[in-house]
Amino acid sequence: MASFYEDNEDLRWYVEKGIDWEPLIELTERRFIDSDGPDDAKEALELYVDIMKMVGEFVAGEIAPHAGEIDREGVHLGEDGEVVFPERLQSIFDQIEELDLHGLNVPRELGGMNAPMLVYFLLSEMMGRADVSVMAHHGFHGGMAMAALIFSIREGTTTIDRETGRIQETRFRQMIEEIVAGKAWGCMDITEPDAGSDMAALRAKAEQDEDGNWFVSGEKIFITSGHGKWHFVIARTEDAGDPNDPMAGLKGLSFFLVPTYHEKDGKRERHVAITRVEEKMGHHGSATCGLLFDRAPAMLIGERGEGFKHMLTLMNNARVGVGFECLGLCEAAYRKAKAYAAERGSMGKTIDRHEMIADMLDEMEADITAIRAMAVTAGYNEEICQKLRLALEHYGNLSAEETAEAKAELKKRERIARRLTPLLKYWGAEKAVEISRRCIQIHGGNGYIDEYGAEKLMRDAMVMPIYEGTSQIQALMAMKDTLGGIMKDPRRFVRKMAQARWRSVSARDPLERRVAKLQSLSFGLQQQLIVRTAGDKMKGLQGKPVTDWPDSFLKDWDPKRDFSFAMLHADRLIRILTDVAVAELLLRQANEHAERRPLLERHLERAEVRCANLVNEIEHTGERLLAKLARLGTAMADAAE
Amino acid sequence: MASFYEDNEDLRWYVEKGIDWEPLIELTERRFIDSDGPDDAKEALELYVDIMKMVGEFVAGEIAPHAGEIDREGVHLGEDGEVVFPERLQSIFDQIEELDLHGLNVPRELGGMNAPMLVYFLLSEMMGRADVSVMAHHGFHGGMAMAALIFSIREGTTTIDRETGRIQETRFRQMIEEIVAGKAWGCMDITEPDAGSDMAALRAKAEQDEDGNWFVSGEKIFITSGHGKWHFVIARTEDAGDPNDPMAGLKGLSFFLVPTYHEKDGKRERHVAITRVEEKMGHHGSATCGLLFDRAPAMLIGERGEGFKHMLTLMNNARVGVGFECLGLCEAAYRKAKAYAAERGSMGKTIDRHEMIADMLDEMEADITAIRAMAVTAGYNEEICQKLRLALEHYGNLSAEETAEAKAELKKRERIARRLTPLLKYWGAEKAVEISRRCIQIHGGNGYIDEYGAEKLMRDAMVMPIYEGTSQIQALMAMKDTLGGIMKDPRRFVRKMAQARWRSVSARDPLERRVAKLQSLSFGLQQQLIVRTAGDKMKGLQGKPVTDWPDSFLKDWDPKRDFSFAMLHADRLIRILTDVAVAELLLRQANEHAERRPLLERHLERAEVRCANLVNEIEHTGERLLAKLARLGTAMADAAE
Repeated sequence: MASFYEDNEDLRWYVEKGIDWEPLIELTERRFIDSDGPDDAKEALELYVDIMKMVGEFVAGEIAPHAGEIDREGVHLGEDGEVVFPERLQSIFDQIEELDLHGLNVPRELGGMNAPMLVYFLLSEMMGRADVSVMAHHGFHGGMAMAALIFSIREGTTTIDRETGRIQETRFRQMIEEIVAGKAWGCMDITEPDAGSDMAALRAKAEQDEDGNWFVSGEKIFITSGHGKWHFVIARTEDAGDPNDPMAGLKGLSFFLVPTYHEKDGKRERHVAITRVEEKMGHHGSATCGLLFDRAPAMLIGERGEGFKHMLTLMNNARVGVGFECLGLCEAAYRKAKAYAAERGSMGKTIDRHEMIADMLDEMEADITAIRAMAVTAGYNEEICQKLRLALEHYGNLSAEETAEAKAELKKRERIARRLTPLLKYWGAEKAVEISRRCIQIHGGNGYIDEYGAEKLMRDAMVMPIYEGTSQIQALMAMKDTLGGIMKDPRRFVRKMAQARWRSVSARDPLERRVAKLQSLSFGLQQQLIVRTAGDKMKGLQGKPVTDWPDSFLKDWDPKRDFSFAMLHADRLIRILTDVAVAELLLRQANEHAERRPLLERHLERAEVRCANLVNEIEHTGERLLAKLARLGTAMADAAE
Repeated sequence: MASFYEDNEDLRWYVEKGIDWEPLIELTERRFIDSDGPDDAKEALELYVDIMKMVGEFVAGEIAPHAGEIDREGVHLGEDGEVVFPERLQSIFDQIEELDLHGLNVPRELGGMNAPMLVYFLLSEMMGRADVSVMAHHGFHGGMAMAALIFSIREGTTTIDRETGRIQETRFRQMIEEIVAGKAWGCMDITEPDAGSDMAALRAKAEQDEDGNWFVSGEKIFITSGHGKWHFVIARTEDAGDPNDPMAGLKGLSFFLVPTYHEKDGKRERHVAITRVEEKMGHHGSATCGLLFDRAPAMLIGERGEGFKHMLTLMNNARVGVGFECLGLCEAAYRKAKAYAAERGSMGKTIDRHEMIADMLDEMEADITAIRAMAVTAGYNEEICQKLRLALEHYGNLSAEETAEAKAELKKRERIARRLTPLLKYWGAEKAVEISRRCIQIHGGNGYIDEYGAEKLMRDAMVMPIYEGTSQIQALMAMKDTLGGIMKDPRRFVRKMAQARWRSVSARDPLERRVAKLQSLSFGLQQQLIVRTAGDKMKGLQGKPVTDWPDSFLKDWDPKRDFSFAMLHADRLIRILTDVAVAELLLRQANEHAERRPLLERHLERAEVRCANLVNEIEHTGERLLAKLARLGTAMADAAE
């Protein structure tokens, strides 16, 4: 029987060896004090593996063979204003419900299985390999239920037994239970017609009546699974503030949970209309909706003005989720291309023996290894962080020593997750496009017709670098985090740079030396960017002790002038950051598991050349363009005066 | 009134200044001795410009606005076995017929306008910008009529007045006249289910009956405009020969003209069935057919075994045509992206002022400049070659001196056309994919839905690197031509390399020095590839005079072992060759027209870094993969023993 779990050696390696399950399971199972839970980590892991095996067979047998049909039929808006799904998709979701997957991560006391999010992510890869639109659609189930729970805990509307960590009561129980039972869908509503990446420009409004009840009005677009009943909505409750500060608008946003309808006298009263279901390039099994909120009764989450903060929480998980989605798509495209190339003959041999095709396949495989290393590590650390925070703040009953330890752990894990998440989203999405494109190319003419399914993968892939934050936004976030991190703690940066330089010559393992050399290259570039970004101001600092840098540096700042060099090259920087991060992850694996050394070697072979080339690009292109943009900026400012 | 001619400054620059029209018009108009033709080059050019202006308005007003509709409706196979076109497409073709465009290049005496092919190519860009599938569909008209004429002249079945060059009688008059009148379509039928790039594997057969009549049987797939009445078909007439020589199969191919049906007793008797019309990713206005030939009466063109040679003639023009098609698509995608970015605001400014987007737009513009320079030069020189050959062989009545001059000119032009054509096809196609992808990305979510037309451009673009020879085939051809050229004439190579080195330090113009430096880099790499390709054998030659190289070099050859390094890097090599060729073209323009200097400068800024990076990749990656392929090859050979 086909299984997307059994046939995937690298995925199984993580489950069997690569993931340090114990700490994660201990946090998830709250030290196994639940009488209806597993007794120890081993028992829990056996259950997860069983689930993965079951889902591996399910997606291979029941979703993958029908991906073409779902793509052809697609979803559309019915005359009654509801989204109509293909019959096949409906039956797949019935099966998912039977498998109890909707409640995979939800605590047992709320009807779920209480498995770690990481298990969900690993399943996502497999489901994404079968069909990303089914995966995206499915993802909005458990994910939204868990988000509701976390928001409620944070705002203090969930009571938890501090001893056992069991949830006693929670504000959004109805939503969570409906989702677990497969009776309702959830979604998150952010984008508006004139506000995509620029969230400060959001205009949907929430107003309070005299009794303090909230109502949301406005338009939202591109809402994945917008047909869902439960909407997390970001809406404006305060004025935008200083019109000269493009970020000011963020502070006036608040976060709401809005049900699409209320039952009244046995009838449904709708407050959120689906105005359209987009005709998209791909992702045809997922409904992308335009929505109109007409004074829809809403529940404020947390405090006014916290909208952007809550949105980021959702976004972090969503970005990791997209990383796994991309991974699944890449895996599908790579395997399809490889199988075709091994069969198709040309010039006396199969085309996988033709050098250029072999080169493509080899790079595709290496890239997938890289994405999976980042995805698993980001997902793991992000989840540990979330669970550590809950334990610290809401139920841990930790001793002072345990608290200090947990806080240190949290800080370390946060750094890893925060660093990897934009890299994963960026690289996964860009590679999904590249790998699916190569899959078409390897198929030749057969890649261009719908019969072989290659072109469908590329149509699906094209949304990856756009949704949940475009590739450009990921690049900017990584750039700002990297440079900001240096400025906040320049000593740490200088120390790490020196360590890398030292290890690049002193480490015994030649692979470790190569990784350190790659790190050095990246650190050197970061330093260059900082110096360039700070411009003349920075030059004045170079004689001063590094501890004085932050203060001096943060004065008299002109983001337009000073940041533009780093912004121009943010895309190149994030590629270097990714290659270095992957090298570090694979080195850690190789140090513990000899069988991973060839993967690191393969990665380094291309990464070393790529990074050197990117540095070359940064150092030798762009001045003309920056001068042009500066001229345009000046001209615009002059015209405005 | 919108015009794709008037609004395109770079295109107009070529028409008004960049193209040396006189020699081309003189050859086309056979020294203006036709009483019904123009009196001089100036009059002819005025006519061409009128046509371009007319078509520029026609495509902008009558095709571009309906591209989305044609894409949505597409073509399909009707129940009667004929292809059904959308009504809109039909009406566009009625208008094209009214504009007399079908006979644009056909000699006046056969009912056409006798304009140069280059005019057709320039129109193609504009039509491709409006919709590539309409352009591809249209291209198969005049192109096939002209091909029929050229084949007939070559095989000696056309009589030409040697004095005037006027055609008196020609074998395929019926086909040509039907096409000029818009009554019938032509197509070329090469690909088969198991033979795409590998033409030696073609299996469709042609057999002769006792009376010498030919009949074609077999299957053809992916035939653009395969619904046409007149098929150029490549089919096997001889055995494949030595099974150990993968190229042997090419020698057994012959070339035929096959009408789809014959009229018999007022009824149509079909010999070529349309078995399917492909459901493609894009290009929906163009019918891509599967065909079944069932003992279809056929006319042999030229001699038996000349199939591959004739196919190459068609292919050369087709590749230049695809170059212009790609150019049109890139122009459409770039303009769409630029217009959107100039309107869409984010973070307090329009997104074309955001550094990464500005960088993309700037590179797109530079790439389009590069494609147009190659396309115009390749098209111009290819046409001059074809017309010089006709004049030399069939009607010129040239003096001995004129003949010698024309032959020298032909050799020079052939070299230019042969060099540029694969680069144009490769670069144009790859950039069509990249630029249309960036167009989607710049549109964000709006790029992914069909409403904005961005995703349609990318779906259309994805076939460019596949049809008329994949990008990989172009890269291999360019690599073999380049290395083969060095081996045939090593003295010339050494001389050119020395010249480039000298000019890179001695030229007065700094831009010329930079171009020479780029050439030096490319020559250096070529030398490296030759040395590496020849391996140990070559090392033994290095003491010998270069004139001895070819003989020694051509002995004891093992293509599998010796060529694999160059084959692995063929894709990287062709990118370097392209950047150098474009730099040379733009330098020539800049030397004569100061307004072109900034274009050269912009090209060099990126090309210098790109080429250096590609050399870095060639020098530092691939050994592991080559070793692996060699092991697989040895294992396969061992298994066969």
